[in-house]
Amino acid sequence: MRRASVFLIDQNLLPFKFKIFNSPDYKTTCHAIKIMMARGAGAIGAAAGFAMAQAFLQKANIEKARKEIKSTRPTAQNLFYAVERVFNASNPVKEAQIIADEDVANCRKIGEHGEKLIKSGSRIETHCNAGWLAFVDYGTALSPIYLAKKKGKKCFVYVDETRPRGQGARLTAWELAGEKIPFKIIPDNAGAFLMSRGEIDLMIVGADRIAANGDAANKIGTLEKAIAAKEFGIPFYVAAPTSTIDLNCKSGKAIPIEERSEDEVLFQTGLNSKSETEKVLVCSPGAKAFNPAFDVTPAKYITGMITEKGIVTPTVAGIKSLTR
Amino acid sequence: MRRASVFLIDQNLLPFKFKIFNSPDYKTTCHAIKIMMARGAGAIGAAAGFAMAQAFLQKANIEKARKEIKSTRPTAQNLFYAVERVFNASNPVKEAQIIADEDVANCRKIGEHGEKLIKSGSRIETHCNAGWLAFVDYGTALSPIYLAKKKGKKCFVYVDETRPRGQGARLTAWELAGEKIPFKIIPDNAGAFLMSRGEIDLMIVGADRIAANGDAANKIGTLEKAIAAKEFGIPFYVAAPTSTIDLNCKSGKAIPIEERSEDEVLFQTGLNSKSETEKVLVCSPGAKAFNPAFDVTPAKYITGMITEKGIVTPTVAGIKSLTR
Repeated sequence: MRRASVFLIDQNLLPFKFKIFNSPDYKTTCHAIKIMMARGAGAIGAAAGFAMAQAFLQKANIEKARKEIKSTRPTAQNLFYAVERVFNASNPVKEAQIIADEDVANCRKIGEHGEKLIKSGSRIETHCNAGWLAFVDYGTALSPIYLAKKKGKKCFVYVDETRPRGQGARLTAWELAGEKIPFKIIPDNAGAFLMSRGEIDLMIVGADRIAANGDAANKIGTLEKAIAAKEFGIPFYVAAPTSTIDLNCKSGKAIPIEERSEDEVLFQTGLNSKSETEKVLVCSPGAKAFNPAFDVTPAKYITGMITEKGIVTPTVAGIKSLTR
Repeated sequence: MRRASVFLIDQNLLPFKFKIFNSPDYKTTCHAIKIMMARGAGAIGAAAGFAMAQAFLQKANIEKARKEIKSTRPTAQNLFYAVERVFNASNPVKEAQIIADEDVANCRKIGEHGEKLIKSGSRIETHCNAGWLAFVDYGTALSPIYLAKKKGKKCFVYVDETRPRGQGARLTAWELAGEKIPFKIIPDNAGAFLMSRGEIDLMIVGADRIAANGDAANKIGTLEKAIAAKEFGIPFYVAAPTSTIDLNCKSGKAIPIEERSEDEVLFQTGLNSKSETEKVLVCSPGAKAFNPAFDVTPAKYITGMITEKGIVTPTVAGIKSLTR
């Protein structure tokens, strides 16, 4: 943030173009969150906190702005957490910056705790993107992998493509290539197959909201992976800062699930042979689609929660120990 | 088949273009099977039977042709079944036609048996394409749905997109639209979410090879759906003619799984804004992918096998009762 401007990586242009977007006011930042230019639990939280600070700097109608920012995306808890903290702060701009800095520190700590779960030679599956793009730095699910690499452990990552928006194929793959960590993209359909063949040692995903009982909302498809992992006896970890916990949700049933435009399923954007970005229809013309953006994984499928405060079991007691 | 020519629907052009391909010789038919111009268990079987007949008509080296045709695709049992029948027949051309005609009759009977499982109002999920395109007519997984519709039952189909090749979004959606059956395409990731919300009453899929113990190989992703369906108590049926059974495979572990080009994952082909077919890169440039075409669903996740001889439990005894 500089003066009233917020600077964001335009994640919709990745992996084909790296561009910083300058958002001059809170309404533009809201739009950037809505269209997923800023995406990922922590990045949404940080952007929302800065949007709230922008509203103060602009001397906007604060109550209206607070409502507007909170209505951009319904599932990620970090958004509500950040908006409320900045709204209630005596120095909103400073508070927004503190939230962003805390995100970096928390993600680093998640890496330190999670890294202990990784043996050299581990084959790790991940879903969607919970790397540094999704947060302010490091990320959650990928942070332990980055630290393991730094410590000299060798690991291989199976990256779920993550349809419909392809955050795995586009963003996680781009991050891992940058960090020189060996990986392969797999169709979302191939997860259980690899598990059944003994090719996955560990699965780590992020979370957008964690209920008081340890149920976790995350990118659509996480539930299927968690069920399969349990079936094949593969440890399945959720990595998230405690700011993702929403004690107002007694269980995952209370977490609202965002439904996004069917066009995300019906069309795909990519680079054509001229290296131009192009949108193509990838289904039978005229077909309709259903596009839920998240699902809820019941706590019983989750081996543990990797947080900045340590790794806990996904139970009421485990979650309570983090929020005291 | 007319003279030595085999006529095939070019399924790689669907749903954007409907074109009949004229294959003049067995080598061209082999290529059509390899590149999935002819795809789907029954359609592969019929095409392979005709290819074998073409080899006889061409007075080709029969042993060599038999080997060549059988090496086009490794998983679909119908291919080996058809090639052997035509190879051993006194009148190869007639035998190839009989196989195709039997496929039609079998698929119709699968429809009759399977239709009884469908209540009016049922919400049915299906994976990949096991409709008439995948067979000579009717199909297997979709045949019961087509008959239910004819009998006046209302049902709604959730069509798994089926990445990487999108047979659900492209072919099943195209078939269902033609039959005026209401449906929506869903990302493969959304199956368990819908199941967890009580939105799926029944799942029916096809099969490419069924082992003696009832394990079934089918399009990659089937295993994940079957595990999720079991978890949520949703009946999961495999629909296939008995020609799909391979008693030489004692269990699914013996079924070879085809690995296809990573380009099927890394690129997507679709219609651009000018309504031209275009291939676009949908991942981080330079990334590699792993692309297994099938997986094996253990019998324990399968509620029943819908065959032309009736519905049986996926057990050694059940399978034996079909092959006596």
